[in-house]
Amino acid sequence: MNGKMKALVKHHRGFGAELRMVDIPQIQEDEVLIKVKATSICGTDVHIYTWDEWSQSRVNPPYVFGHEFSGEVVEIGSKVTSVEIGDFVSAETHIVCGSCPQCLTGQYHICKNTKIIGVDTGGCFAEYVALPAVNLWKNPKDMPVDTASVQEPMGNAVHTVLAGETAGKTVAVIGCGPIGIMAVGVAKAAGASQVIALDLNDYRLNLAKEMGATTIINSAKENPLEVIDALTGGNGVDVVCEMSGHPIAMNQGFKMVTNGGRVSILSLPVRPVEIDVTNDIVFKGVTVQGITGRQMFKTWQQVSNLLASGQVDVKPMITHHFPLEEFEKGFDLMIKGECGKVVLQP
Amino acid sequence: MNGKMKALVKHHRGFGAELRMVDIPQIQEDEVLIKVKATSICGTDVHIYTWDEWSQSRVNPPYVFGHEFSGEVVEIGSKVTSVEIGDFVSAETHIVCGSCPQCLTGQYHICKNTKIIGVDTGGCFAEYVALPAVNLWKNPKDMPVDTASVQEPMGNAVHTVLAGETAGKTVAVIGCGPIGIMAVGVAKAAGASQVIALDLNDYRLNLAKEMGATTIINSAKENPLEVIDALTGGNGVDVVCEMSGHPIAMNQGFKMVTNGGRVSILSLPVRPVEIDVTNDIVFKGVTVQGITGRQMFKTWQQVSNLLASGQVDVKPMITHHFPLEEFEKGFDLMIKGECGKVVLQP
Amino acid sequence: MNGKMKALVKHHRGFGAELRMVDIPQIQEDEVLIKVKATSICGTDVHIYTWDEWSQSRVNPPYVFGHEFSGEVVEIGSKVTSVEIGDFVSAETHIVCGSCPQCLTGQYHICKNTKIIGVDTGGCFAEYVALPAVNLWKNPKDMPVDTASVQEPMGNAVHTVLAGETAGKTVAVIGCGPIGIMAVGVAKAAGASQVIALDLNDYRLNLAKEMGATTIINSAKENPLEVIDALTGGNGVDVVCEMSGHPIAMNQGFKMVTNGGRVSILSLPVRPVEIDVTNDIVFKGVTVQGITGRQMFKTWQQVSNLLASGQVDVKPMITHHFPLEEFEKGFDLMIKGECGKVVLQP
Amino acid sequence: MNGKMKALVKHHRGFGAELRMVDIPQIQEDEVLIKVKATSICGTDVHIYTWDEWSQSRVNPPYVFGHEFSGEVVEIGSKVTSVEIGDFVSAETHIVCGSCPQCLTGQYHICKNTKIIGVDTGGCFAEYVALPAVNLWKNPKDMPVDTASVQEPMGNAVHTVLAGETAGKTVAVIGCGPIGIMAVGVAKAAGASQVIALDLNDYRLNLAKEMGATTIINSAKENPLEVIDALTGGNGVDVVCEMSGHPIAMNQGFKMVTNGGRVSILSLPVRPVEIDVTNDIVFKGVTVQGITGRQMFKTWQQVSNLLASGQVDVKPMITHHFPLEEFEKGFDLMIKGECGKVVLQP
Repeated sequence: MNGKMKALVKHHRGFGAELRMVDIPQIQEDEVLIKVKATSICGTDVHIYTWDEWSQSRVNPPYVFGHEFSGEVVEIGSKVTSVEIGDFVSAETHIVCGSCPQCLTGQYHICKNTKIIGVDTGGCFAEYVALPAVNLWKNPKDMPVDTASVQEPMGNAVHTVLAGETAGKTVAVIGCGPIGIMAVGVAKAAGASQVIALDLNDYRLNLAKEMGATTIINSAKENPLEVIDALTGGNGVDVVCEMSGHPIAMNQGFKMVTNGGRVSILSLPVRPVEIDVTNDIVFKGVTVQGITGRQMFKTWQQVSNLLASGQVDVKPMITHHFPLEEFEKGFDLMIKGECGKVVLQP
Repeated sequence: MNGKMKALVKHHRGFGAELRMVDIPQIQEDEVLIKVKATSICGTDVHIYTWDEWSQSRVNPPYVFGHEFSGEVVEIGSKVTSVEIGDFVSAETHIVCGSCPQCLTGQYHICKNTKIIGVDTGGCFAEYVALPAVNLWKNPKDMPVDTASVQEPMGNAVHTVLAGETAGKTVAVIGCGPIGIMAVGVAKAAGASQVIALDLNDYRLNLAKEMGATTIINSAKENPLEVIDALTGGNGVDVVCEMSGHPIAMNQGFKMVTNGGRVSILSLPVRPVEIDVTNDIVFKGVTVQGITGRQMFKTWQQVSNLLASGQVDVKPMITHHFPLEEFEKGFDLMIKGECGKVVLQP
Repeated sequence: MNGKMKALVKHHRGFGAELRMVDIPQIQEDEVLIKVKATSICGTDVHIYTWDEWSQSRVNPPYVFGHEFSGEVVEIGSKVTSVEIGDFVSAETHIVCGSCPQCLTGQYHICKNTKIIGVDTGGCFAEYVALPAVNLWKNPKDMPVDTASVQEPMGNAVHTVLAGETAGKTVAVIGCGPIGIMAVGVAKAAGASQVIALDLNDYRLNLAKEMGATTIINSAKENPLEVIDALTGGNGVDVVCEMSGHPIAMNQGFKMVTNGGRVSILSLPVRPVEIDVTNDIVFKGVTVQGITGRQMFKTWQQVSNLLASGQVDVKPMITHHFPLEEFEKGFDLMIKGECGKVVLQP
Repeated sequence: MNGKMKALVKHHRGFGAELRMVDIPQIQEDEVLIKVKATSICGTDVHIYTWDEWSQSRVNPPYVFGHEFSGEVVEIGSKVTSVEIGDFVSAETHIVCGSCPQCLTGQYHICKNTKIIGVDTGGCFAEYVALPAVNLWKNPKDMPVDTASVQEPMGNAVHTVLAGETAGKTVAVIGCGPIGIMAVGVAKAAGASQVIALDLNDYRLNLAKEMGATTIINSAKENPLEVIDALTGGNGVDVVCEMSGHPIAMNQGFKMVTNGGRVSILSLPVRPVEIDVTNDIVFKGVTVQGITGRQMFKTWQQVSNLLASGQVDVKPMITHHFPLEEFEKGFDLMIKGECGKVVLQP
């Protein structure tokens, strides 16, 4: 398709972004052009927007960023057979190599040569986005466009929570950003008997409560270890989902987990963390799991099924909708932490 | 404790049972005497009551039968430290040897020398029951006595459903006796996106619906494979919980499961079953699991937590309560299949 | 590449095959042409050669059959980047769709739309074979060509044996065709404390012995259950690898496995098998696994590493080598069961 | 049994120990008296002997220490049925409570109330030792007494190595004390394609070589990450068994493991360790396992079977034998690291 489109461009090596008219991207024979219906702001997008250290070392302005979305297929490349024009799709954000030992054994999410849509390639904060057909996930026609857009980060939550047994277990979610809040909902849906949400932000803790947390703990106001001790008869929790990235919170996670429990870490601490390996991992026989991305496409199947069945309802977590033009409002809320998920509509 | 008590005695080698006054059982140093608050009728009890072929070869009247119950500890042996007088308890029904290779590796539920309470030893259809302390499970004080009584069969359901991944999966439960009905509730609580219940009895299918089944199929009226094909876009179900014991239903289970799925069998077909191993197991890469008893006490922890948290509510499934004296009404309903669980109160 | 080549053609709908000169196959942009160095005869090839019921319903003569091989890449399609001219390769035999739910979750080996090389497409009993690049597996340059050729069936053995724990376990391999014999070697290499091989053919049992079986049992001459009882102190074996496809042998497998053990079935019984589900699966808490193909490419990595490290040596199992022209000798031996693996060299 | 016996007594709160004549211990009704045939020195015993910080806070002289042994049952308590006089036994060192949530779910090795033989109770550096019958493990009559004695620490090695897949994998063992050296042998026996042993001590690296290491790396002389990069084609190892307890070595372990690999930690670093969670655990999708003790008695079964079958031969690792009287020689060698395992014979 030829022509121009609105797009949110990371236009310079500094704070902010700019709405511009740019060329609609051209597709290759194995690619698909999608008209974006809804796109949501990820923490990664905020890093790029605020131009933090990580962004400075990784992304190359000017380019269109954004990677969470849902939309309609409007053009397909000559070799594409997996989707059709009119399909309602979202996309896996990781473009993988297919030939490293990890890809060859089906572990695409830890491909050593991963490129990320909207970070290493053009993104979806725009009217149209061009993507490899193999990255697309077909949505049910009746799924709301904002729900469909947040499947990608919900995939992180699902990948973390369901990385081990959950039913009848006590699960602590440390860090209640949007993914943490969704992790609460997933744990509840998966049969956790207690879901304990921890954060320093009451606004987000209240969203966690709405998503099904049985207890919320503001770690700035209460000692989380004491509260959890009381909630678990001194045994500790079975599962910790670490989504804060904060070294103190992470270490509280290691203290609160019971012997033989698991600590599934999705967060990305900015510096190495000091961990009491002997007492908190070895003697307790704890399993620590590094979680990244989504298992392709096992996690997408789980996400889609949990949403379609109503087992998880992400509506309480999607707190704001803006037209793409008002992107600054969205990024402001994200920076302040006064929101769940923010959806932009081109 | 000395004295007499009411007890339901399998009194002769024939149909029926008799309410009698018998001696309150004496406890050993490692045993506990429990005042029974509620006791529920299992399919096994019906076999014994109706004196079927299996009972004739296994049990030795006269003796007190029954094995599902909840009650209060009223006397403890000199060596017992794990429970106290006044504790509210239920019991694991399998008395295991502790020294076979299975017990030595923590697989007590498949101990080769298992004795079953109420089958091989005196049971709980009585005012009091004496049991080894190691078999007891402490209940929360506020758990209803009938709910506490059905934890044992609910353990079978939990052991079956949670023997693999469930969240976001499509689960079929074949056979909606009380355990099947509870399996429906457990699958739903554990995040299954579809829970399809199959039986020939509409009364029980309706109970399955009340417990959360998303679809009920009366296999006498509809072709289950066609219905499931439609429900799953031709893919089949991810998990089959086989609880019917009927060879045709079991084979339908093998046909309806998707490639790579699991078939977890709790039922006990009375004769060998012809299975199309090549097409239904090997080419499909299916995993078949034989499920028996409850993992001690992993399953009990899961059951207790699922009930205490409200993730599973068994009330709709407990359809009848009678005083112990009216046991005949309970057994009649069980024989006719016009009930969920029947609770007797001594 | 243009020109003619020698090829073994299944030329008619009847017994046998014919060596013919045929066109060298032309490759597509995502395909590769390979000069075959060694090719080995699979049981499937014997079915096609002898024109049994299955072949009659599945294959369409005339075509070149055969699917186990190793060879050198001599030409690559314009889009191929994963291999280079001169690479020494073997190939996964299953051509999968990539878009069914199984493929989308990395379970390619149970793709519902699998096509098999040499069955549904042209094969490798020839001087050259053309294959999709994604099916190729690169071999170490110094791997013998016959060893490299038998990696595909060894993959079946590895997939079966390593489908659960093996180290320190007692493993029974029922059926000592070439894959069974390799399963013996794999079990031994993986730390099995006993590897018990069962068959009716002493020639093949002796090969199993050479591959590391600690006990061989000719089930026509000894009662396998009695022997195994004695070998395991009455406990039975931990793992059964069923590779015979015979209903009696398969049922012996179910009897000889210990409570909680696993029965991994690779064989393809020609008719449904009567199984005592209650006593042999449910009460024993046994896990039955249907095993088909090879996990792509997890199994290939395992096979390649086990061979390259010398942990498994398949030489004793490769009993015969013939030039392609003498294919009849090879098929005769296979039909009579008087061989391990037969390798043909074009 | 009444009388006196020789025993190695930790006699004061300072360096060393003293050989004394003490009372033969009296057994309780559920205990067994064993005549010690061989006993081996563990690193823990060296801590006690040298009176380090940990010992000062944990043990209470005077008492008999030591916990690795084999011996003959000479007297049994009135309630003991699991062993008989004349049985040849070793013992699990952890005395567990049986009633915490971990014990109730068969995870005895992480019981929160564990007492350790020879640390919290009287030990086996003596002619006789009294132990609970449930802690005993029966050995084959023909197992050498020194081999039988080192089963306990070999259990640590087995628990660590076999905590995930090993066959066809590349395994690095960091730290070649006696347990590390045995881990090398276990990895090799379990089918590892490469077993890379790392230490700073050439004597111990040579023992690792004798036990089957395919590569030994003295990390003081070579850069282990470069060597491993070359050995694995840049992919890294699949499994790290961390047995050094040294923060630098442990971090090298995290760097050398491939994406999706596992790091199984048995060692006990004396201080918290700084770990690059983001790059070394999360992005790589690594699993970290804390390993302690032995799974009771799954690990003992594996150990016994690996030894009895000859899959693992610990002889090269047992480098010194002394009469109990010459204990000082043994402790000197252990302190200097100039030995594999040292066996004392009372």
